[in-house]
Amino acid sequence: SVGIARSEIKQGVREIVLCKDQNGKMGLRLRSVNKGVFVAFVYENSPAALAGLRFGDQILQINGENVAGWSTDKAMKYLRNCPADRTTMAVRDRPFERSITLQKDSVGTVGFVFKENKITALVKDSSAARNGVLIDHHLVEVNGQNVVGLKEKEIKKIFDESPRTVTITIIPSFIYDHIVKSIGSSLIKKHMDHSIPDA
Amino acid sequence: SVGIARSEIKQGVREIVLCKDQNGKMGLRLRSVNKGVFVAFVYENSPAALAGLRFGDQILQINGENVAGWSTDKAMKYLRNCPADRTTMAVRDRPFERSITLQKDSVGTVGFVFKENKITALVKDSSAARNGVLIDHHLVEVNGQNVVGLKEKEIKKIFDESPRTVTITIIPSFIYDHIVKSIGSSLIKKHMDHSIPDA
Repeated sequence: SVGIARSEIKQGVREIVLCKDQNGKMGLRLRSVNKGVFVAFVYENSPAALAGLRFGDQILQINGENVAGWSTDKAMKYLRNCPADRTTMAVRDRPFERSITLQKDSVGTVGFVFKENKITALVKDSSAARNGVLIDHHLVEVNGQNVVGLKEKEIKKIFDESPRTVTITIIPSFIYDHIVKSIGSSLIKKHMDHSIPDA
Repeated sequence: SVGIARSEIKQGVREIVLCKDQNGKMGLRLRSVNKGVFVAFVYENSPAALAGLRFGDQILQINGENVAGWSTDKAMKYLRNCPADRTTMAVRDRPFERSITLQKDSVGTVGFVFKENKITALVKDSSAARNGVLIDHHLVEVNGQNVVGLKEKEIKKIFDESPRTVTITIIPSFIYDHIVKSIGSSLIKKHMDHSIPDA
Protein backbone atom coordinates (compact mmCIF):
# COMPACT_ATOMS: atom_id res chain seq x y z
CA SER A 1 0.00 0.00 0.00
CA VAL A 2 1.26 3.48 -0.83
CA GLY A 3 0.27 4.93 2.53
CA ILE A 4 -1.83 7.74 1.10
CA ALA A 5 -5.30 8.27 2.52
CA ARG A 6 -7.40 8.67 -0.62
CA SER A 7 -10.20 11.16 -0.92
CA GLU A 8 -13.46 10.48 -2.71
CA ILE A 9 -15.32 12.85 -4.97
CA LYS A 10 -18.90 12.73 -3.78
CA GLN A 11 -21.95 14.50 -5.03
CA GLY A 12 -24.82 14.91 -2.65
CA VAL A 13 -28.24 13.32 -3.12
CA ARG A 14 -31.19 15.35 -1.89
CA GLU A 15 -34.96 14.93 -1.74
CA ILE A 16 -37.29 17.63 -3.05
CA VAL A 17 -41.07 18.09 -3.06
CA LEU A 18 -42.85 19.73 -6.01
CA CYS A 19 -46.38 20.72 -6.86
CA LYS A 20 -47.87 21.86 -10.17
CA ASP A 21 -48.86 25.47 -10.87
CA GLN A 22 -52.43 26.52 -11.68
CA ASN A 23 -51.89 25.50 -15.31
CA GLY A 24 -50.85 22.01 -14.23
CA LYS A 25 -47.16 22.60 -15.03
CA MET A 26 -43.99 21.99 -13.02
CA GLY A 27 -41.86 24.06 -15.43
CA LEU A 28 -39.41 21.25 -15.98
CA ARG A 29 -37.96 19.43 -19.00
CA LEU A 30 -36.07 16.20 -18.50
CA ARG A 31 -33.72 14.40 -20.86
CA SER A 32 -32.30 10.88 -20.89
CA VAL A 33 -28.49 10.63 -21.21
CA ASN A 34 -26.46 7.41 -20.69
CA LYS A 35 -29.52 5.71 -19.10
CA GLY A 36 -29.83 8.53 -16.56
CA VAL A 37 -32.51 11.24 -16.46
CA PHE A 38 -31.28 14.85 -16.30
CA VAL A 39 -32.80 18.31 -15.86
CA ALA A 40 -32.59 20.00 -19.27
CA PHE A 41 -34.70 23.10 -18.65
CA VAL A 42 -36.18 24.95 -15.66
CA TYR A 43 -38.85 27.57 -16.39
CA GLU A 44 -38.37 30.86 -14.56
CA ASN A 45 -40.50 31.22 -11.37
CA SER A 46 -41.97 27.75 -11.87
CA PRO A 47 -42.48 25.12 -9.14
CA ALA A 48 -39.30 23.42 -10.41
CA ALA A 49 -37.30 26.66 -10.02
CA LEU A 50 -38.76 27.27 -6.54
CA ALA A 51 -37.82 23.72 -5.51
CA GLY A 52 -34.21 24.50 -6.43
CA LEU A 53 -33.88 22.18 -9.44
CA ARG A 54 -31.05 23.22 -11.73
CA PHE A 55 -29.79 22.47 -15.20
CA GLY A 56 -27.80 19.23 -15.13
CA ASP A 57 -29.30 17.77 -11.93
CA GLN A 58 -29.76 13.99 -12.22
CA ILE A 59 -33.18 12.71 -11.20
CA LEU A 60 -32.83 9.33 -9.46
CA GLN A 61 -36.42 8.72 -8.33
CA ILE A 62 -39.86 10.26 -8.86
CA ASN A 63 -42.47 9.35 -6.27
CA GLY A 64 -40.31 6.42 -5.20
CA GLU A 65 -39.92 4.97 -8.71
CA ASN A 66 -36.39 4.49 -10.02
CA VAL A 67 -36.07 6.37 -13.32
CA ALA A 68 -32.78 4.82 -14.48
CA GLY A 69 -33.22 3.59 -18.04
CA TRP A 70 -36.28 5.73 -18.76
CA SER A 71 -36.43 7.48 -22.13
CA THR A 72 -36.97 11.24 -22.36
CA ASP A 73 -40.55 10.60 -23.53
CA LYS A 74 -41.33 8.21 -20.69
CA ALA A 75 -39.98 10.66 -18.09
CA MET A 76 -41.97 13.60 -19.52
CA LYS A 77 -45.14 11.53 -19.75
CA TYR A 78 -44.69 10.39 -16.14
CA LEU A 79 -44.37 14.03 -15.01
CA ARG A 80 -47.57 14.97 -16.82
CA ASN A 81 -49.42 12.20 -14.97
CA CYS A 82 -48.08 13.12 -11.52
CA PRO A 83 -50.63 14.46 -9.00
CA ALA A 84 -50.91 18.26 -8.88
CA ASP A 85 -50.33 18.62 -5.17
CA ARG A 86 -47.26 16.56 -4.35
CA THR A 87 -44.43 14.94 -6.31
CA THR A 88 -41.24 13.86 -4.60
CA MET A 89 -37.89 13.48 -6.35
CA ALA A 90 -34.50 12.14 -5.29
CA VAL A 91 -31.90 14.30 -7.01
CA ARG A 92 -28.13 14.00 -7.47
CA ASP A 93 -26.47 17.39 -7.61
CA ARG A 94 -25.25 18.01 -11.19
CA PRO A 95 -22.81 15.13 -11.63
CA PHE A 96 -21.26 16.42 -14.86
CA GLU A 97 -20.62 19.96 -13.64
CA ARG A 98 -17.90 21.53 -11.56
CA SER A 99 -17.18 24.94 -10.11
CA ILE A 100 -13.92 26.86 -10.41
CA THR A 101 -13.16 30.07 -8.53
CA LEU A 102 -11.27 32.73 -10.48
CA GLN A 103 -9.82 36.18 -9.71
CA LYS A 104 -10.14 39.10 -12.10
CA ASP A 105 -6.82 40.63 -13.16
CA SER A 106 -6.00 44.35 -13.11
CA VAL A 107 -8.09 45.00 -16.23
CA GLY A 108 -11.01 42.98 -14.92
CA THR A 109 -10.71 39.81 -17.00
CA VAL A 110 -10.47 36.18 -15.84
CA GLY A 111 -8.80 34.88 -18.99
CA PHE A 112 -10.97 32.80 -21.26
CA VAL A 113 -12.78 33.39 -24.54
CA PHE A 114 -16.36 32.18 -25.02
CA LYS A 115 -18.73 32.08 -27.95
CA GLU A 116 -22.39 31.81 -27.07
CA ASN A 117 -21.67 30.08 -23.75
CA LYS A 118 -18.95 27.71 -24.97
CA ILE A 119 -15.38 28.18 -23.78
CA THR A 120 -13.16 28.26 -26.88
CA ALA A 121 -9.74 29.51 -25.73
CA LEU A 122 -7.67 30.31 -22.65
CA VAL A 123 -5.41 33.32 -22.14
CA LYS A 124 -1.88 32.25 -21.20
CA ASP A 125 -1.03 32.60 -17.49
CA SER A 126 -4.49 34.06 -16.76
CA SER A 127 -6.57 33.14 -13.72
CA ALA A 128 -8.54 30.71 -15.92
CA ALA A 129 -5.32 29.01 -17.10
CA ARG A 130 -3.86 28.82 -13.56
CA ASN A 131 -7.04 27.31 -12.16
CA GLY A 132 -7.64 24.62 -14.75
CA VAL A 133 -10.51 25.95 -16.87
CA LEU A 134 -10.87 23.78 -20.00
CA ILE A 135 -11.99 24.47 -23.54
CA ASP A 136 -14.78 22.41 -25.12
CA HIS A 137 -16.80 23.11 -21.99
CA HIS A 138 -19.94 25.24 -21.63
CA LEU A 139 -20.52 27.89 -19.00
CA VAL A 140 -23.57 26.89 -16.96
CA GLU A 141 -23.41 29.40 -14.11
CA VAL A 142 -21.56 32.56 -13.13
CA ASN A 143 -21.63 33.23 -9.36
CA GLY A 144 -24.49 30.72 -9.06
CA GLN A 145 -26.64 32.42 -11.71
CA ASN A 146 -27.65 30.19 -14.63
CA VAL A 147 -26.38 31.63 -17.93
CA VAL A 148 -27.60 28.89 -20.30
CA GLY A 149 -29.26 30.62 -23.25
CA LEU A 150 -28.15 34.13 -22.28
CA LYS A 151 -26.58 36.28 -24.99
CA GLU A 152 -22.82 36.82 -24.96
CA LYS A 153 -23.22 40.46 -24.05
CA GLU A 154 -25.53 39.53 -21.15
CA ILE A 155 -22.95 37.07 -19.83
CA LYS A 156 -20.17 39.65 -20.28
CA LYS A 157 -22.26 42.10 -18.24
CA ILE A 158 -22.55 39.55 -15.40
CA PHE A 159 -18.75 39.20 -15.41
CA ASP A 160 -18.29 42.99 -15.54
CA GLU A 161 -20.59 43.51 -12.57
CA SER A 162 -19.11 40.64 -10.53
CA PRO A 163 -16.81 41.27 -7.58
CA ARG A 164 -13.14 40.45 -8.17
CA THR A 165 -13.68 36.81 -7.15
CA VAL A 166 -15.85 35.02 -9.72
CA THR A 167 -17.05 31.42 -9.47
CA ILE A 168 -17.95 29.71 -12.74
CA THR A 169 -19.67 26.35 -13.16
CA ILE A 170 -18.81 24.40 -16.33
CA ILE A 171 -19.87 21.18 -18.05
CA PRO A 172 -18.21 19.24 -20.91
CA SER A 173 -19.73 20.46 -24.18
CA PHE A 174 -20.58 16.98 -25.45
CA ILE A 175 -22.77 16.40 -22.37
CA TYR A 176 -24.24 19.90 -22.63
CA ASP A 177 -25.15 19.28 -26.26
CA HIS A 178 -26.80 15.95 -25.33
CA ILE A 179 -28.88 17.56 -22.59
CA VAL A 180 -30.08 20.65 -24.44
CA LYS A 181 -30.76 18.85 -27.71
CA SER A 182 -34.49 18.97 -28.44
CA ILE A 183 -35.19 21.90 -26.11
CA GLY A 184 -36.12 24.81 -28.36
CA SER A 185 -33.52 27.57 -28.23
CA SER A 186 -36.18 30.28 -28.07
CA LEU A 187 -37.71 28.61 -24.99
CA ILE A 188 -34.28 28.55 -23.34
CA LYS A 189 -33.48 32.13 -24.32
CA LYS A 190 -36.83 33.55 -23.23
CA HIS A 191 -37.84 31.50 -20.21
CA MET A 192 -34.89 29.63 -18.63
CA ASP A 193 -34.59 30.35 -14.92
CA HIS A 194 -31.77 32.95 -14.83
CA SER A 195 -32.53 34.24 -11.34
CA ILE A 196 -29.73 35.56 -9.15
CA PRO A 197 -29.19 33.39 -6.06
CA ASP A 198 -29.42 34.74 -2.53
CA ALA A 199 -26.05 35.60 -1.06
CA SER B 1 -34.56 35.58 -6.42
CA VAL B 2 -35.81 32.09 -5.72
CA GLY B 3 -34.61 32.08 -2.13
CA ILE B 4 -32.55 28.92 -2.46
CA ALA B 5 -29.01 28.95 -1.12
CA ARG B 6 -27.10 27.28 -3.94
CA SER B 7 -24.29 24.86 -3.35
CA GLU B 8 -21.14 24.74 -5.43
CA ILE B 9 -19.38 21.64 -6.68
CA LYS B 10 -15.74 22.21 -5.82
CA GLN B 11 -12.76 20.06 -6.42
CA GLY B 12 -9.74 20.60 -4.23
CA VAL B 13 -6.38 21.82 -5.47
CA ARG B 14 -3.34 20.40 -3.70
CA GLU B 15 0.44 20.79 -3.93
CA ILE B 16 2.71 17.77 -4.17
CA VAL B 17 6.49 17.30 -4.22
CA LEU B 18 8.11 14.60 -6.36
CA CYS B 19 11.61 13.32 -6.93
CA LYS B 20 12.94 10.95 -9.58
CA ASP B 21 13.96 7.36 -8.87
CA GLN B 22 17.47 6.03 -9.40
CA ASN B 23 16.72 5.55 -13.10
CA GLY B 24 15.73 9.21 -13.42
CA LYS B 25 12.00 8.39 -13.73
CA MET B 26 8.92 9.75 -11.97
CA GLY B 27 6.69 6.92 -13.23
CA LEU B 28 4.17 9.31 -14.72
CA ARG B 29 2.56 9.81 -18.14
CA LEU B 30 0.64 12.99 -18.87
CA ARG B 31 -1.86 13.72 -21.61
CA SER B 32 -3.30 16.98 -22.96
CA VAL B 33 -7.13 17.12 -23.14
CA ASN B 34 -9.16 20.29 -23.82
CA LYS B 35 -6.04 22.45 -23.21
CA GLY B 36 -5.57 20.88 -19.78
CA VAL B 37 -2.85 18.39 -18.74
CA PHE B 38 -4.03 15.15 -17.11
CA VAL B 39 -2.46 12.13 -15.42
CA ALA B 40 -2.84 9.23 -17.85
CA PHE B 41 -0.66 6.61 -16.18
CA VAL B 42 1.01 6.08 -12.79
CA TYR B 43 3.66 3.35 -12.57
CA GLU B 44 3.34 1.05 -9.55
CA ASN B 45 5.61 1.96 -6.60
CA SER B 46 7.01 4.94 -8.51
CA PRO B 47 7.64 8.42 -7.06
CA ALA B 48 4.37 9.51 -8.75
CA ALA B 49 2.44 6.71 -6.98
CA LEU B 50 4.09 7.50 -3.64
CA ALA B 51 3.17 11.19 -4.04
CA GLY B 52 -0.48 10.15 -4.40
CA LEU B 53 -1.00 11.09 -8.06
CA ARG B 54 -3.93 9.25 -9.59
CA PHE B 55 -5.38 8.59 -13.02
CA GLY B 56 -7.40 11.63 -14.12
CA ASP B 57 -5.75 14.22 -11.85
CA GLN B 58 -5.36 17.56 -13.63
CA ILE B 59 -1.88 19.10 -13.38
CA LEU B 60 -2.18 22.90 -13.12
CA GLN B 61 1.45 23.88 -12.50
CA ILE B 62 4.86 22.21 -12.56
CA ASN B 63 7.61 24.04 -10.69
CA GLY B 64 5.48 27.17 -10.75
CA GLU B 65 4.89 27.12 -14.52
CA ASN B 66 1.29 27.08 -15.71
CA VAL B 67 0.81 24.07 -17.98
CA ALA B 68 -2.56 25.06 -19.50
CA GLY B 69 -2.34 24.78 -23.27
CA TRP B 70 0.73 22.50 -23.24
CA SER B 71 0.71 19.56 -25.63
CA THR B 72 1.30 16.01 -24.39
CA ASP B 73 4.79 16.11 -25.90
CA LYS B 74 5.68 19.41 -24.29
CA ALA B 75 4.50 18.20 -20.88
CA MET B 76 6.44 14.92 -21.12
CA LYS B 77 9.58 16.70 -22.33
CA TYR B 78 9.30 19.16 -19.45
CA LEU B 79 9.09 16.28 -16.95
CA ARG B 80 12.21 14.67 -18.40
CA ASN B 81 14.11 17.92 -17.90
CA CYS B 82 12.98 18.44 -14.30
CA PRO B 83 15.66 18.19 -11.60
CA ALA B 84 16.00 14.75 -9.99
CA ASP B 85 15.63 15.90 -6.41
CA ARG B 86 12.58 18.13 -6.32
CA THR B 87 9.64 18.87 -8.61
CA THR B 88 6.51 20.59 -7.31
CA MET B 89 3.07 20.28 -8.88
CA ALA B 90 -0.26 21.96 -8.26
CA VAL B 91 -2.94 19.32 -8.84
CA ARG B 92 -6.72 19.46 -9.19
CA ASP B 93 -8.34 16.29 -7.87
CA ARG B 94 -9.75 14.33 -10.85
CA PRO B 95 -12.24 16.84 -12.28
CA PHE B 96 -13.95 14.38 -14.64
CA GLU B 97 -14.50 11.61 -12.08
CA ARG B 98 -17.08 11.02 -9.41
CA SER B 99 -17.68 8.47 -6.69
CA ILE B 100 -20.94 6.64 -6.05
CA THR B 101 -21.56 4.44 -3.01
CA LEU B 102 -23.52 1.24 -3.65
CA GLN B 103 -24.87 -1.60 -1.50
CA LYS B 104 -24.66 -5.24 -2.56
CA ASP B 105 -28.00 -7.03 -2.76
CA SER B 106 -28.77 -10.42 -1.19
CA VAL B 107 -26.84 -12.26 -3.92
CA GLY B 108 -23.86 -9.91 -3.66
CA THR B 109 -24.33 -7.83 -6.81
CA VAL B 110 -24.54 -4.04 -7.17
CA GLY B 111 -26.41 -4.06 -10.47
CA PHE B 112 -24.38 -3.08 -13.50
CA VAL B 113 -22.73 -4.93 -16.35
CA PHE B 114 -19.20 -4.04 -17.47
CA LYS B 115 -16.99 -5.14 -20.33
CA GLU B 116 -13.28 -4.56 -19.83
CA ASN B 117 -13.87 -1.67 -17.42
CA LYS B 118 -16.66 0.05 -19.35
CA ILE B 119 -20.16 0.12 -17.86
CA THR B 120 -22.53 -1.14 -20.56
CA ALA B 121 -25.88 -1.81 -18.83
CA LEU B 122 -27.79 -1.30 -15.58
CA VAL B 123 -29.99 -3.84 -13.80
CA LYS B 124 -33.48 -2.44 -13.18
CA ASP B 125 -34.10 -1.30 -9.58
CA SER B 126 -30.60 -2.39 -8.52
CA SER B 127 -28.38 -0.35 -6.21
CA ALA B 128 -26.56 0.99 -9.30
CA ALA B 129 -29.85 2.11 -10.87
CA ARG B 130 -31.11 3.70 -7.64
CA ASN B 131 -27.89 5.61 -7.10
CA GLY B 132 -27.44 7.06 -10.57
CA VAL B 133 -24.68 4.96 -12.13
CA LEU B 134 -24.51 5.72 -15.89
CA ILE B 135 -23.57 3.66 -18.91
CA ASP B 136 -20.89 4.91 -21.33
CA HIS B 137 -18.70 5.48 -18.29
CA HIS B 138 -15.53 3.63 -17.30
CA LEU B 139 -14.78 2.23 -13.86
CA VAL B 140 -11.63 3.92 -12.55
CA GLU B 141 -11.63 2.75 -8.94
CA VAL B 142 -13.38 0.25 -6.69
CA ASN B 143 -13.09 1.10 -2.97
CA GLY B 144 -10.25 3.50 -3.82
CA GLN B 145 -8.24 0.87 -5.72
CA ASN B 146 -7.40 1.76 -9.32
CA VAL B 147 -8.82 -0.84 -11.73
CA VAL B 148 -7.75 0.72 -15.05
CA GLY B 149 -6.25 -2.05 -17.16
CA LEU B 150 -7.25 -4.88 -14.82
CA LYS B 151 -8.95 -7.89 -16.37
CA GLU B 152 -12.70 -8.33 -15.94
CA LYS B 153 -12.22 -11.33 -13.67
CA GLU B 154 -9.75 -9.37 -11.52
CA ILE B 155 -12.28 -6.56 -11.15
CA LYS B 156 -15.06 -9.07 -10.38
CA LYS B 157 -12.84 -10.53 -7.65
CA ILE B 158 -12.43 -7.08 -6.08
CA PHE B 159 -16.23 -6.72 -6.02
CA ASP B 160 -16.64 -10.25 -4.63
CA GLU B 161 -14.20 -9.58 -1.81
CA SER B 162 -15.59 -6.12 -1.00
CA PRO B 163 -17.73 -5.49 2.09
CA ARG B 164 -21.43 -4.94 1.42
CA THR B 165 -20.89 -1.21 0.88
CA VAL B 166 -18.88 -0.61 -2.30
CA THR B 167 -17.70 2.79 -3.56
CA ILE B 168 -16.99 3.05 -7.26
CA THR B 169 -15.34 5.96 -9.09
CA ILE B 170 -16.39 6.50 -12.70
CA ILE B 171 -15.45 8.78 -15.62
CA PRO B 172 -17.28 9.44 -18.91
CA SER B 173 -15.93 7.02 -21.51
CA PHE B 174 -15.19 9.70 -24.10
CA ILE B 175 -12.84 11.42 -21.61
CA TYR B 176 -11.36 8.09 -20.54
CA ASP B 177 -10.63 7.22 -24.16
CA HIS B 178 -8.98 10.63 -24.72
CA ILE B 179 -6.75 10.20 -21.68
CA VAL B 180 -5.61 6.61 -22.23
CA LYS B 181 -5.12 7.00 -25.98
CA SER B 182 -1.42 6.57 -26.79
CA ILE B 183 -0.60 4.76 -23.52
CA GLY B 184 0.27 1.19 -24.49
CA SER B 185 -2.29 -1.27 -23.15
CA SER B 186 0.40 -3.72 -22.06
CA LEU B 187 2.07 -0.98 -20.00
CA ILE B 188 -1.26 -0.23 -18.33
CA LYS B 189 -2.06 -3.89 -17.74
CA LYS B 190 1.36 -4.79 -16.37
CA HIS B 191 2.49 -1.74 -14.46
CA MET B 192 -0.38 0.63 -13.59
CA ASP B 193 -0.49 1.42 -9.89
CA HIS B 194 -3.26 -0.88 -8.63
CA SER B 195 -2.31 -0.70 -4.96
CA ILE B 196 -4.97 -1.03 -2.30
CA PRO B 197 -5.36 2.18 -0.29
CA ASP B 198 -4.92 2.35 3.47
CA ALA B 199 -8.20 2.14 5.32
